[in-house]
Amino acid sequence: MLNANEAAALHAQLTIVDGVEYCNWDRQIFEQLVAGGVSAVHATVAYHETARETLSRIGEWNRLFQAFNDLICPVNSITDIRTAKTEGRVAILLGAQNSSPIEDDIDLVALFRQLGLRVMQLTYNNQSLLASGCFELKDGGVTRFGREVIREMNRVGMLIDLAHGGEVSTLDAAELSDRPIVVSHANPRFYHDTPRNVSEGEMRAVAETGGLLGLSAYPRHLPNGAQTPLRSFCDMAARAVDIMGVEHVGIGTDLCQNQPVSVLSWMRGGRWNPGVPGATSDLDWPVETDWFAQATDFPNLTAGLAARGFSGKEIAGIMGENWLRVLSTTTDQQTSDE
Amino acid sequence: MLNANEAAALHAQLTIVDGVEYCNWDRQIFEQLVAGGVSAVHATVAYHETARETLSRIGEWNRLFQAFNDLICPVNSITDIRTAKTEGRVAILLGAQNSSPIEDDIDLVALFRQLGLRVMQLTYNNQSLLASGCFELKDGGVTRFGREVIREMNRVGMLIDLAHGGEVSTLDAAELSDRPIVVSHANPRFYHDTPRNVSEGEMRAVAETGGLLGLSAYPRHLPNGAQTPLRSFCDMAARAVDIMGVEHVGIGTDLCQNQPVSVLSWMRGGRWNPGVPGATSDLDWPVETDWFAQATDFPNLTAGLAARGFSGKEIAGIMGENWLRVLSTTTDQQTSDE
Repeated sequence: MLNANEAAALHAQLTIVDGVEYCNWDRQIFEQLVAGGVSAVHATVAYHETARETLSRIGEWNRLFQAFNDLICPVNSITDIRTAKTEGRVAILLGAQNSSPIEDDIDLVALFRQLGLRVMQLTYNNQSLLASGCFELKDGGVTRFGREVIREMNRVGMLIDLAHGGEVSTLDAAELSDRPIVVSHANPRFYHDTPRNVSEGEMRAVAETGGLLGLSAYPRHLPNGAQTPLRSFCDMAARAVDIMGVEHVGIGTDLCQNQPVSVLSWMRGGRWNPGVPGATSDLDWPVETDWFAQATDFPNLTAGLAARGFSGKEIAGIMGENWLRVLSTTTDQQTSDE
Repeated sequence: MLNANEAAALHAQLTIVDGVEYCNWDRQIFEQLVAGGVSAVHATVAYHETARETLSRIGEWNRLFQAFNDLICPVNSITDIRTAKTEGRVAILLGAQNSSPIEDDIDLVALFRQLGLRVMQLTYNNQSLLASGCFELKDGGVTRFGREVIREMNRVGMLIDLAHGGEVSTLDAAELSDRPIVVSHANPRFYHDTPRNVSEGEMRAVAETGGLLGLSAYPRHLPNGAQTPLRSFCDMAARAVDIMGVEHVGIGTDLCQNQPVSVLSWMRGGRWNPGVPGATSDLDWPVETDWFAQATDFPNLTAGLAARGFSGKEIAGIMGENWLRVLSTTTDQQTSDE
């Protein structure tokens, strides 16, 4: 078993990928990512944003790329993440936590992929045009439009993400997709039983596609919120690995740093239930755990996995290599159609 | 002077670029372009379309590229036009005849460039957010936003087009742009005196940027409409060359084939004066000349220029090489900002 010094040395060597964040991005946050040893972050650009709104969100990222090019860079190929590691920069992959950016127009899948959107959830909590969200009373599975969009995402190289999706929809997507799919940020339901987390059936189905589950450090996805110890999180990781295989588990911290409550309200209520922080009684951002409150805490995850008995190779996979494999096989090549 | 046989032989060797068309695109029209020896067309995707609408128009082109890939191809680099020539296909450059696609968001310039929009007019007949159109009573020149957009178009490699612009706005743009600008489709006012055509001052200013004027075969830009003889058109070309230099004159036919009157109404009235074909009494599409009614008539232009005494090299420039030079120097490289 790796001791603490060995775990720290290992951490510095890893290419670390965070499967989703939605921070109030600024220099300090980018510096924390670099300090935490992170080489890539999947950054959310849309929760309920329309096509037009998503264009401006991507435009804002293009300005961040110019303003902070000492710390961050865009991803034109997944190999850019390896380069970012050697440069001490963080590669930013853009993604959407909903299908709202494509509205009802399948042609927009290819256009947003061209603009750098490499990941898209089929839905966010609610029914979308593509699939049912995890909080709907009934889950109708992947819709007619959803089937077409899955085929198009496979074709153009956009990763299918079922975080926030319903169970039937996730199982459907896993069956329909010709490429690996992910649940970018959630935990198993055996660990904390909420519709936002995933069943063993979903875990197995996602693993069978070649994809992964990104384990979440968001306190509401943990059994005891901020009081949940790191040891418990790593025990859960070990059980997830037993179910899915060590190549099919990654990290998706769901870090939403320095965001005002208005952002929580937008995420939960969008325009369908505006001005209300959420359908639950959780009216504010949760207190973070003491082992993961910002990106400088990434070494704690490596140390925790090492203390739980994972090998260096297994830790490398969970902390980033599994994400790199999935992103590369799903988003680096278009299906040829000429 | 080239005789008719020599002109026909020359035509087959030329790389021909049409500086603007807005046809009701289908297989027959693409076949006519190939038969006419055309290697590239700048195709309009927007007159008054918003950002969202322009996305769908570009999406429709992406489907045309798939459906008709035996006849057409997109342009990822201006060298693709040379390849298209050897393959007997037509390369399609996308462009906008207005600044409506970027709305009031400068970030959208780079995003639409990424989606393939290589040319954008600053305005179409009316006042836009960037500049005054040719039919406004007062021409305020390039606006504050327009100055920023010109700098951004220069930076990202999007060609600035002043067709349909006012004279002051055109002169302003020529002075403000660090890269060549064009008037993609218009004729000199000395030939037919309408605000849609360009003054000698505009012609000289555009030439000084290194850009070009695309001579138009649209009957309303000609002195006697459909009755205007080819000989007269070629005499005008010779005088334009005397003013601008032979490297600064090209072709922009403004061919709008098989379009219903509703399209003319949209072009002229947009949403600002909907349902009315135009401010003038021209309530329908004009009858075309007998020497240029469809793309198969391109050899007539080569023959006419040859008969007027232009050399093979001069004809090559006017029929395509000048456009290739301008497009390459304005749209193939971004200004580095790292």
